[in-house]
Amino acid sequence: MARHHFVPTRYSNEIGTQPPVLEIASGDSVITTTLDAAGFGGDGEQHAPRGNPMTGPFFVTGAEPGDALLVTIERMTPNRKTGWTYSPLAPGVLDPSVLAELPKRERYEWAIDAEAGTVKLLEPTDRIKDWSFPLAPMLGCFGVAPERGQAISTATSGAYGGNMDYRLFGPGATIAFPVFVDGALFFLGDGHACQGDGEIAGTGVETSFEVEFSVKLVKRLGLRWPRCETETDLLVIAAGRPLDQPLQFATTELLRWVGEDLGVNPVEASHLLGQAVRYDIANVFNPAYCVAARLAKTELTRPMSLLART
Amino acid sequence: MARHHFVPTRYSNEIGTQPPVLEIASGDSVITTTLDAAGFGGDGEQHAPRGNPMTGPFFVTGAEPGDALLVTIERMTPNRKTGWTYSPLAPGVLDPSVLAELPKRERYEWAIDAEAGTVKLLEPTDRIKDWSFPLAPMLGCFGVAPERGQAISTATSGAYGGNMDYRLFGPGATIAFPVFVDGALFFLGDGHACQGDGEIAGTGVETSFEVEFSVKLVKRLGLRWPRCETETDLLVIAAGRPLDQPLQFATTELLRWVGEDLGVNPVEASHLLGQAVRYDIANVFNPAYCVAARLAKTELTRPMSLLART
Amino acid sequence: MARHHFVPTRYSNEIGTQPPVLEIASGDSVITTTLDAAGFGGDGEQHAPRGNPMTGPFFVTGAEPGDALLVTIERMTPNRKTGWTYSPLAPGVLDPSVLAELPKRERYEWAIDAEAGTVKLLEPTDRIKDWSFPLAPMLGCFGVAPERGQAISTATSGAYGGNMDYRLFGPGATIAFPVFVDGALFFLGDGHACQGDGEIAGTGVETSFEVEFSVKLVKRLGLRWPRCETETDLLVIAAGRPLDQPLQFATTELLRWVGEDLGVNPVEASHLLGQAVRYDIANVFNPAYCVAARLAKTELTRPMSLLART
Amino acid sequence: MARHHFVPTRYSNEIGTQPPVLEIASGDSVITTTLDAAGFGGDGEQHAPRGNPMTGPFFVTGAEPGDALLVTIERMTPNRKTGWTYSPLAPGVLDPSVLAELPKRERYEWAIDAEAGTVKLLEPTDRIKDWSFPLAPMLGCFGVAPERGQAISTATSGAYGGNMDYRLFGPGATIAFPVFVDGALFFLGDGHACQGDGEIAGTGVETSFEVEFSVKLVKRLGLRWPRCETETDLLVIAAGRPLDQPLQFATTELLRWVGEDLGVNPVEASHLLGQAVRYDIANVFNPAYCVAARLAKTELTRPMSLLART
Repeated sequence: MARHHFVPTRYSNEIGTQPPVLEIASGDSVITTTLDAAGFGGDGEQHAPRGNPMTGPFFVTGAEPGDALLVTIERMTPNRKTGWTYSPLAPGVLDPSVLAELPKRERYEWAIDAEAGTVKLLEPTDRIKDWSFPLAPMLGCFGVAPERGQAISTATSGAYGGNMDYRLFGPGATIAFPVFVDGALFFLGDGHACQGDGEIAGTGVETSFEVEFSVKLVKRLGLRWPRCETETDLLVIAAGRPLDQPLQFATTELLRWVGEDLGVNPVEASHLLGQAVRYDIANVFNPAYCVAARLAKTELTRPMSLLART
Repeated sequence: MARHHFVPTRYSNEIGTQPPVLEIASGDSVITTTLDAAGFGGDGEQHAPRGNPMTGPFFVTGAEPGDALLVTIERMTPNRKTGWTYSPLAPGVLDPSVLAELPKRERYEWAIDAEAGTVKLLEPTDRIKDWSFPLAPMLGCFGVAPERGQAISTATSGAYGGNMDYRLFGPGATIAFPVFVDGALFFLGDGHACQGDGEIAGTGVETSFEVEFSVKLVKRLGLRWPRCETETDLLVIAAGRPLDQPLQFATTELLRWVGEDLGVNPVEASHLLGQAVRYDIANVFNPAYCVAARLAKTELTRPMSLLART
Repeated sequence: MARHHFVPTRYSNEIGTQPPVLEIASGDSVITTTLDAAGFGGDGEQHAPRGNPMTGPFFVTGAEPGDALLVTIERMTPNRKTGWTYSPLAPGVLDPSVLAELPKRERYEWAIDAEAGTVKLLEPTDRIKDWSFPLAPMLGCFGVAPERGQAISTATSGAYGGNMDYRLFGPGATIAFPVFVDGALFFLGDGHACQGDGEIAGTGVETSFEVEFSVKLVKRLGLRWPRCETETDLLVIAAGRPLDQPLQFATTELLRWVGEDLGVNPVEASHLLGQAVRYDIANVFNPAYCVAARLAKTELTRPMSLLART
Repeated sequence: MARHHFVPTRYSNEIGTQPPVLEIASGDSVITTTLDAAGFGGDGEQHAPRGNPMTGPFFVTGAEPGDALLVTIERMTPNRKTGWTYSPLAPGVLDPSVLAELPKRERYEWAIDAEAGTVKLLEPTDRIKDWSFPLAPMLGCFGVAPERGQAISTATSGAYGGNMDYRLFGPGATIAFPVFVDGALFFLGDGHACQGDGEIAGTGVETSFEVEFSVKLVKRLGLRWPRCETETDLLVIAAGRPLDQPLQFATTELLRWVGEDLGVNPVEASHLLGQAVRYDIANVFNPAYCVAARLAKTELTRPMSLLART
């Protein structure tokens, strides 16, 4: 149960089978830093090319294909006082017929006040100078190396995680990834100070963080998509396009999880999902869109667990 | 400000330009009843063919194309003690590769206890006999006659409303519909005792209701999609396929609403939506899927209103 | 086997259950005229509002729900010398990221030379003054009244036909529509002098026509989507969004047609479709996109027929 | 202008930056062999794991990011007498509501007669024993290493090529790929003896080939998607989901190609595409669907070329 302090010296714009930066054991935690989506760190300098450069990969002793790697985001502390977004909204989330009327997308700077817990535009116009958003840190892009030696751009996502940009992946969340290669090879980065559903600006408030995470290895779980437990919810996240597809994948995997963990058949599990499921549109901006299928724990008369054997 | 008691004697399986059942004035309220999606009423008898038979249309004095009709759902009281669903989940919400493994979809009966505020399977298996869902009534299908004399099946939805199957359209919600024909011609029906996101069972818990609603006419509002205000939220709902399309339509109309109501430009409005928007998948079962783009009132430093002139 | 000459005096912008303009019998043919998509006729005057005003409906004696109405387009003769398009391409067919760079969509006039069989811009720029397209007339929008008394805008399409905008629906084609109401109620209009796949300009070369068509009633065919036979091909056309959906519908109905007409099982029929099917994207512009699944007659060792009982 | 004979000894199930198997020069041709999609070669033995194992990569001297690699498929000779398919059709191409009625997908063997130019089921049922398809070889999966050191599964496709499964990519076709890494790193495999549009069986008739191809390097072409010239057509192919997306990408790139090669503006180019474009659905089975936007050379009054500088 070691607690590692890891200072990154190289980063990767792909998630794949690469030489690990550190070997850690199940139960360990790691304190490290992440760059923002453009490669800038807490010192305001660019340390890697733009496009979600990742810290890692971390090799988890004993992890093998078919296992699950449970990652708990213990803490995310912004390590600088500014972040940035783009505006107006991304073209893909608007009716194509209005796109010609909109101004060109440009970058805007934001002030992050960790003490006050707020995120505000650095130079707001008068009309919106009282606007403020709660600081709600999240990891936009993280996951494990995909199957068969692939190395995939951090622009996109899949069963291995990646650029999911889901606002519930913040401190307190535990995410279970299917392991595809020996050592799992865990990567993380692309933190946001806050973000609405869908990442429809094409960004959250992008900034760099000090992150503490812990890992737990569970042997032979057979997950098909990442699962997650938060204080209040259980959920599956999946990726694809159009939104209908990750919704299908996440629903199918949640139906399976409910069935196997609660010991009920597909009809029984469907009664629960039909009346209680919630969907979150994580991102509708990246090459693969992400949808989470979620159940509030209050809907369950018996607890479900990330450890369910399926 | 009359309060009408209206007992329906005919129903319609289309929403369109039809002879009205009653003329009402802005400010009036109406107490009436709705059949379930299969045409059965509070007496357990079938009064109309299946497929969301509607009560109405109600002609609203003075309503003209370009106006908005604001409908407040004042109360929904189940007028019988049972409802029904289908199970397992609808084929369209699951990964096509698993569909062959699932049992055939069949109808299941539910007990509705209005006093206890619960909805439970009537004959649950032992494994799930403690499952219960909170009674959370909603109107699945309601709206006004579409433009140009069209008459459209209550299976689907559009800018005029229709079969949106959105769980937030329950008591306390005020929905603003764009008016397309003289008198607006308001229809309602297809009540659900409860329903998860997406109506993924292909049904909520379908039952009949006594409904009280009130109407308010607002001249010349120029809405492009229905808007809604609940106790806590403001939202736009839109329809289309795949889910990406109603998301585009709802986002575009919410951006416009924020811009015009708060007097901000598209860049300023995008800052708000980008960091604060929530999406709800209303239904992913009907011929047109519905997505709501929603803002919590707590995110706003100045109030927005259904009365915003645009 | 009467040959009617019908001069329209009213038009409809919906396809639905309306008073017929003429009753005709199976085997009859009709010579009539159609307006262009904006309501203009051969005399250059506007006779109906824009949006694909239809000639009809024609009541076919004895047609009942469940029957099929076979319509052969015998001849389409442009009855004026100009047509029009919009340019540049429709926003929905381009990458959203380039839309802001394009000029506003405007109308362009074309010269139709029926004798030479050519369609050319009326005032081309020097750079493209030698561009010419072969005259290839087609009906953009035609079909029968949909089920249950619906009346649906001619902007869209469905199992009843409608605004399919498919370039193979020209002279020589026989289209079999499922009949939904007594008399079938056949409508036609929206002729194009030529059009590429997808109607990606949002128009073909829109003009008015003298059209001759004949009808044949086939009792109890049970079609689920329109089928068509041309000189060289057999095809099913279907409507929906995204393109994946009409492709699914058309493939499913073609598989069924092959299975029942050739007396083969789904595996055998799949061998044929898998190696020989061709898909045409009819339109990717209207509210419902259309895809045709097509088999060349040369791929068949036994003939298939529009008369196949299914 | 060397003519290499290359006998593969290792294969790759990813397309990415890997050690080359051979360095070749612009103008050279290569005669080599490809395994079938399951890894079986002309000797009937499995030489690599299933999932489109690739022959290559071939390093092209002097190729740099921004260049184009033109690959001409000179010849494809089946090097064994059998191929295989799956049947019935893939679940994704059928209406979800009928999937439960279909038998399980199973493998079927086919006889390939290169001399007769036919492809037939090896053990047809009596009902279809006269069915035969013309031998029409094509490469299902080929392309160059994607950008930034990625290594991507041969299941899918992108701007770098990959598993496009397009039936026009056969002998005589020249495909121009954008180069992303030094040496281009060209891979090829997954040959089909024949295949319909969409690869809707989930396979063509999968078999192994002797393939001869030649390469030509063109400096600084700036392609965004692969372009292709056949004897009769010019086309762009693109990948994504749903089908609407590759259609958008391919149309946008074809519009750009027409504009720059013919020296016309977007309005002028739109006139041509609007009236003359053809779309082919290459595959609707793989994780990324592919659509080709195609112009017949007969539609052009001036020739277009793969060498157009853009």
